[in-house]
Amino acid sequence: MHDVIIIGAGPAGLSAAIYAARAKLKTLVIERQNCGGLMLLTDLIENYPGFPKGVNGFDLTMDLEAQAKKFGAEILIGQIIKIETGKIKTVYLKDKKFETKTLIFAAGTQIKELGIKGEQEFIGKGVSYCAVCDAPFFKGKDVVVIGGADSAVQEAVYLAKFAKQVFVLYRKQALRANKILQEKLFAAKNIKVVYNALPKEIFGVNNVEGIKFLDTESQQDCMLFCGGVFVFIGQSPNSSICQFLNLDDNGYIITDENMKAGEGIFACGDIRKKELRQIVTAVADGAQAAVSAHQFIEMSSLL
Amino acid sequence: MHDVIIIGAGPAGLSAAIYAARAKLKTLVIERQNCGGLMLLTDLIENYPGFPKGVNGFDLTMDLEAQAKKFGAEILIGQIIKIETGKIKTVYLKDKKFETKTLIFAAGTQIKELGIKGEQEFIGKGVSYCAVCDAPFFKGKDVVVIGGADSAVQEAVYLAKFAKQVFVLYRKQALRANKILQEKLFAAKNIKVVYNALPKEIFGVNNVEGIKFLDTESQQDCMLFCGGVFVFIGQSPNSSICQFLNLDDNGYIITDENMKAGEGIFACGDIRKKELRQIVTAVADGAQAAVSAHQFIEMSSLL
Repeated sequence: MHDVIIIGAGPAGLSAAIYAARAKLKTLVIERQNCGGLMLLTDLIENYPGFPKGVNGFDLTMDLEAQAKKFGAEILIGQIIKIETGKIKTVYLKDKKFETKTLIFAAGTQIKELGIKGEQEFIGKGVSYCAVCDAPFFKGKDVVVIGGADSAVQEAVYLAKFAKQVFVLYRKQALRANKILQEKLFAAKNIKVVYNALPKEIFGVNNVEGIKFLDTESQQDCMLFCGGVFVFIGQSPNSSICQFLNLDDNGYIITDENMKAGEGIFACGDIRKKELRQIVTAVADGAQAAVSAHQFIEMSSLL
Repeated sequence: MHDVIIIGAGPAGLSAAIYAARAKLKTLVIERQNCGGLMLLTDLIENYPGFPKGVNGFDLTMDLEAQAKKFGAEILIGQIIKIETGKIKTVYLKDKKFETKTLIFAAGTQIKELGIKGEQEFIGKGVSYCAVCDAPFFKGKDVVVIGGADSAVQEAVYLAKFAKQVFVLYRKQALRANKILQEKLFAAKNIKVVYNALPKEIFGVNNVEGIKFLDTESQQDCMLFCGGVFVFIGQSPNSSICQFLNLDDNGYIITDENMKAGEGIFACGDIRKKELRQIVTAVADGAQAAVSAHQFIEMSSLL
């Protein structure tokens, strides 16, 4: 019987594991792929407090993993196929099952990718999914933003403070973002919107050098040279396994300020409905979720 | 004119500075003493995610400071004597004043100290004010907890999982903590409460070796040998300068989830009313406060 099973080994899950294991809870982390989550996509993380020279996403992952294991947390790679809730919760993998007093969901989100040639190849080398993370690396360069909803427009405005020129490529004839954001976008002198643009390929040698797209009106293939491509066509929470919880319209888990999502069930990090999705807020969520799980165990053992 | 003035240079304030300055806001941090805040009290911080070997409080402070300065934040040591709010806020020091669009309060809390001989001398060498931070260093040792309210009893129960024996010294005849906590305390086999105990001196050579106290009933001087003394007689927020905000009964600033405390005014870290006061939650608060300040500036410049 575990005290806590944490689902997902990104920054939120690993921080929860550090706090849970250090408080002497019997702690298991189950991760379906690799530790680190979306953090692995970032080559240089500049804004995680404590690393003035920045830190590589892979290195920070290794550090968090080592820290969790040091206090006794176990990490298992495996695919969860079913969860049963109740006073005792059961987590089923293909060939084994685990019982636990508390569950912490920290499975993060999945970034929607374009799925075009060059995208995977240049992740961290010009292809980015986060302006707040990577904008300063594109100072004085031309960059392309893909998308036309709130996040794309917001990030384009943000990028315009750094980049020489920002091109927003959107597949439709008009932006979908709210008017206030659009006003800001059109007020910026160095942002140009290209409508009816369907991305086809990101190209370059070592780093991104440009993007090819189809002008769906003229059916012409076009090319745009740039140092970076920022993709903001949305992301979705990995919450298919926890449909029994209270989710918002986009599938994010709704919690209170202490990360409680149900009886003995907690959620932390990007999978949770929240304002700011950053590594620093993910690790704080994780710490709070572990402390809340601990308190739940203490309190319920009294009953 | 500054975009943001941050009051306090502990982990919350410095993280806010990192995020604000990196977003190209003109950022000034005003600190009355030294950067680092209560973080400086901890010799080895084991639970800040990203440092598997632990990190010294002073070193982490230096890193956060360097990171904030790297992005262009200014840090000023000085005593604030008055703040005027309004659309533009003015911060007065003795001999100068600064104007700013937004304010972030990150002035933290002050730990209530015993004020007895040996206390200052052995901070970080056996004297601690945080069980979650330091309990693992006292595995198998005898420790003393000073206090009798909720936090003292809660931390004593926590410490009992690590220490060989926990002695709770309390100056009154009965504990003040809530009944559920008291039940847990009395259920633990290795906790003993000493009533009517008035601490007089913490002694030792290089590290804490014991405590002297007065038994106020018998008026006898007593001595207890132990490896650690945990002081939990309360703490108070440094919020005397922001009485114009919405404070709770204990003087903590009330904010929403985005750290908003007023029009263009934000609060983050220990000074804020919140559940878990840790470095990791402080830096997350700081990041959120900076992002919220940024959004406020963007939105208000539209009007």
